[in-house]
Amino acid sequence: MTDAQAALAAISFNADGLVPAIAQQFDTGEVLMMAWMNREAVAETLATGRVCYYSRSRKGLWRKGETSGQQQHLKEFLIDCDGDTILVKVDQDGVACHTGRRTCFYTAARPEGLVEVATVQVDPKDLYGK
Amino acid sequence: MTDAQAALAAISFNADGLVPAIAQQFDTGEVLMMAWMNREAVAETLATGRVCYYSRSRKGLWRKGETSGQQQHLKEFLIDCDGDTILVKVDQDGVACHTGRRTCFYTAARPEGLVEVATVQVDPKDLYGK
Repeated sequence: MTDAQAALAAISFNADGLVPAIAQQFDTGEVLMMAWMNREAVAETLATGRVCYYSRSRKGLWRKGETSGQQQHLKEFLIDCDGDTILVKVDQDGVACHTGRRTCFYTAARPEGLVEVATVQVDPKDLYGK
Repeated sequence: MTDAQAALAAISFNADGLVPAIAQQFDTGEVLMMAWMNREAVAETLATGRVCYYSRSRKGLWRKGETSGQQQHLKEFLIDCDGDTILVKVDQDGVACHTGRRTCFYTAARPEGLVEVATVQVDPKDLYGK
């Protein structure tokens, strides 16, 4: 049994065949984003060492960084206690968020209201060539 | 508008009225668990400063630590770029996982197979009094 087969057997995919996957920068601990994987995305991620999600909007594999160049290199693939969530520890090239921020989690809900807590590091136009 | 109203307006709940919420230890960066919140759980978490989820199995609010004593004290409540995932930075009392481990993400998929990478710190019997 390969690692992908063992992992797939331990994962409980939901009714849509998907599992949520959290991406965390392996050395700083920063939580970068959350997206979804199907069986094929899990297998490809483990086989290639580059993180691949399933895009629910495009209904297809989403090889992170394929368009933007902002790839995620897999350092550790973790499955939670009941098998219904994945945590990938990655080395993120550049920024994870399509807005050009390092992390997608840049809006804090505080007593004074919503506060932006991460700045744009790259112009999205430079990421997507538009 | 209170912070809860601003947060609720910024969150895209799914068809079941839920949003995934990742819990991260605020100082060490350790990702502890992922669970779900409904509107009421979000509002209660922001109002009380103690993290409250929605239990899909029990179909009711799940005040983390109510039974086990292992509460999560809210440090920061973050919403992602498209509003469909929450990241709560917390101070976790004791352990987050019902297995008595600090984190639910203790199973790594590696080339040699599945490897346990976090040890049991508390006997679950001591957490749940059974």
